[in-house]
Amino acid sequence: MQEVNVGIIGLGNVGLGTLAILTENAEQIALKLGFPLRVKALCSRSIATRKLPDAVADVFRTPDWRQVVAHPEVDIVAELVGGTGVAREIIDAAIQHHKSVVTANKELMALCGAEIWDRAITAGINLAMEASVAGGIPIHSVLREGISGDRVTTLYGILNGTSNYILTEIEKHGASFDQVLAEAQRLGYAESDPSADVDGYDARSKLAILAALAFGEKITPSDIYTEGIRRILPVDFEYAHQLGHTIRLICSARQTPAGLILSVRPALIPQSTILAGVQGAYNAVWVRGKYGEDTFYYGRGAGPAPTGVAVVSDLMRVAREIRAGSPERVSPFAHERLGEYKPIPVTLQHSAYYLRFRVEDRPGIIAALSRVLADKQISLEAVLQLPSDNYRDRPFVITVEPASEQSIRDALVEMSANDFLIEPPLAMPMEKSL
Amino acid sequence: MQEVNVGIIGLGNVGLGTLAILTENAEQIALKLGFPLRVKALCSRSIATRKLPDAVADVFRTPDWRQVVAHPEVDIVAELVGGTGVAREIIDAAIQHHKSVVTANKELMALCGAEIWDRAITAGINLAMEASVAGGIPIHSVLREGISGDRVTTLYGILNGTSNYILTEIEKHGASFDQVLAEAQRLGYAESDPSADVDGYDARSKLAILAALAFGEKITPSDIYTEGIRRILPVDFEYAHQLGHTIRLICSARQTPAGLILSVRPALIPQSTILAGVQGAYNAVWVRGKYGEDTFYYGRGAGPAPTGVAVVSDLMRVAREIRAGSPERVSPFAHERLGEYKPIPVTLQHSAYYLRFRVEDRPGIIAALSRVLADKQISLEAVLQLPSDNYRDRPFVITVEPASEQSIRDALVEMSANDFLIEPPLAMPMEKSL
Repeated sequence: MQEVNVGIIGLGNVGLGTLAILTENAEQIALKLGFPLRVKALCSRSIATRKLPDAVADVFRTPDWRQVVAHPEVDIVAELVGGTGVAREIIDAAIQHHKSVVTANKELMALCGAEIWDRAITAGINLAMEASVAGGIPIHSVLREGISGDRVTTLYGILNGTSNYILTEIEKHGASFDQVLAEAQRLGYAESDPSADVDGYDARSKLAILAALAFGEKITPSDIYTEGIRRILPVDFEYAHQLGHTIRLICSARQTPAGLILSVRPALIPQSTILAGVQGAYNAVWVRGKYGEDTFYYGRGAGPAPTGVAVVSDLMRVAREIRAGSPERVSPFAHERLGEYKPIPVTLQHSAYYLRFRVEDRPGIIAALSRVLADKQISLEAVLQLPSDNYRDRPFVITVEPASEQSIRDALVEMSANDFLIEPPLAMPMEKSL
Repeated sequence: MQEVNVGIIGLGNVGLGTLAILTENAEQIALKLGFPLRVKALCSRSIATRKLPDAVADVFRTPDWRQVVAHPEVDIVAELVGGTGVAREIIDAAIQHHKSVVTANKELMALCGAEIWDRAITAGINLAMEASVAGGIPIHSVLREGISGDRVTTLYGILNGTSNYILTEIEKHGASFDQVLAEAQRLGYAESDPSADVDGYDARSKLAILAALAFGEKITPSDIYTEGIRRILPVDFEYAHQLGHTIRLICSARQTPAGLILSVRPALIPQSTILAGVQGAYNAVWVRGKYGEDTFYYGRGAGPAPTGVAVVSDLMRVAREIRAGSPERVSPFAHERLGEYKPIPVTLQHSAYYLRFRVEDRPGIIAALSRVLADKQISLEAVLQLPSDNYRDRPFVITVEPASEQSIRDALVEMSANDFLIEPPLAMPMEKSL
């Protein structure tokens, strides 16, 4: 039975995880496919000094990725380098060599996935990118195959494990963001520069890819309103719990009559929703479809083995297709060119909101703030204040009925003119429909 | 662009749901596929009097399924009749005509899926059965494609929506099984003969299919130990909550060094597990893989539109393959013929257990029961008794540390010789690893 051969470029965590599964699980994979999937070439800049599994002792290895792409027996190139520099060169070269590509590269696919897909289709090769989002959750497969007959109307995700870990630690232990971040860095759960995780940029790339798959539109990270979790205080969880909610960094893409609203931001979600059960470094995606209603997918967001499963499963699917001959392909990035899902600004979103204020103690504060809301036609729902000796430690909260994000922002600007505010108010949407 | 044509046989709930999606969503489907997917023939015994969507006004319709299977322009036959009689004839005839088949038929695929798949592969046609298990959850696609690179070690499912609805109603309202069942029947959530749902047979068929996909073994319903939910009392939920658990009808398939242990039975699961968040008529599947660790999938288990999404997504996948030429196929029912996953009896399972007793009040009961456990080398963990005026209303509970199911069963037989027992003890495993 004729085998299909893989060249792996990049032997970091994901590359090593992929290699371990391909070698340890080779017999099972061959039985599932009906033919063997073999590692034919390995590339890493430090390949000469790397300790690799015995099973690949005789495999061609090189520090030069061009030798893998050009290798006459390599059918599929696995680009596991990451980033938008050399990774882009590798994928372009593989397409030129008419080789199918499997990639785990979220930044690159978020920034120019549509363009790369168009070139791949023109060249008649396949491109697979399951590992680029939510490592262990086969969400690409779900959106492209499993529920392809449905029309997605809303997608929510918890797509950054580090942020979710930090938020659930603040929730459980009442520690501050800075304390939890320092501990996460010590344990290796957070990078020394945590910005990509805690400021939402990593999640934004992932949402750009998932929203493109779900809605068939060209979506780039710049279409997505993005706000991180640095301002969340332990007291925000106390208020959220009083309201029957919790707080998560929520990636959302929702279809509205006007277009698609995309955001990555901390939000209140009901404690009763299954999304609220996502603890620690796990990821999850919640999809509402016109026909299939609500489905939910949960698993490890990262890690060599879970992400390796995504890469290997992609390799298997691409290998099957190579053996079957090349079908006509349709880009997952723009399959529904109907114009109804164009991204629109988040300011057009309607939602209930949680507004949190830190103020100097003085009379008339609530009156001043609620007058601004009334002027903007925003209906106040509740005022919450936990007991405290000190207004600085115990901010108070106003929740409001559904209003447009623009009217909320206008109100916040106006409120900020009051000198009793110690810092700008914090506004978070309350996702009541979950 | 050349279209692919579908013949639909069976226009019950699932057939009508499928037809609605295929017609309403036709433009999106064509954009996703790159070619149109057309309904070419419709069959129902009562077709002459059926009110069907205007979009299929000109479509060939017949009460004779043979005319659909033999129709020269039909490429894919959707068997949506159900049952193991005429449905089997339809699928056999379609295979003989070299037409690919999409089916929603759990009973048939659970009973003879492996055999039907072998014939389909020999004939070079494709068979798809996403809709046969957990309607709205694309779990077939996940197991066959999304995580195909992994090796599943354990699979848990909540696969019967009616049972889950009844259990969560007992839990929420403290009503008896009979009361909740009667209400569910009144609301149309349960059949007038509820046995398939509440005695576990429906879930058993679904588990047979999922375990076959996950472990690549031939598994039939008779390999699966099955016990329904009729004996669960409201007080069992009170005890379970005291123990930090809840109760669900759990389908499980787990790999052990000796083989595969399969069961459908009520079990205690920790309230902190995401599986415990599955409320009402929802379904869920939880998979542990050697590499990908834990993943979890959740959605509607039934309903015309969610099941219709499964059928339509299968039709799209099969249509893509038809356009691409026929790849070599590997049966999902026996792809890993390595012999390590053979089903073994549930009596070999090791687990912690919850044992619930209803007794006449008299001294020495705990002593008598705990002596039996000690004789069998079973370690008692806790004795729980909620306050009550009446032992009949307030049974008591013993939990035991992990022991073999066989030793528990032997102990229960011995205990049952005591005439202070009002009814045989109820035993449920406690799934602490979730």
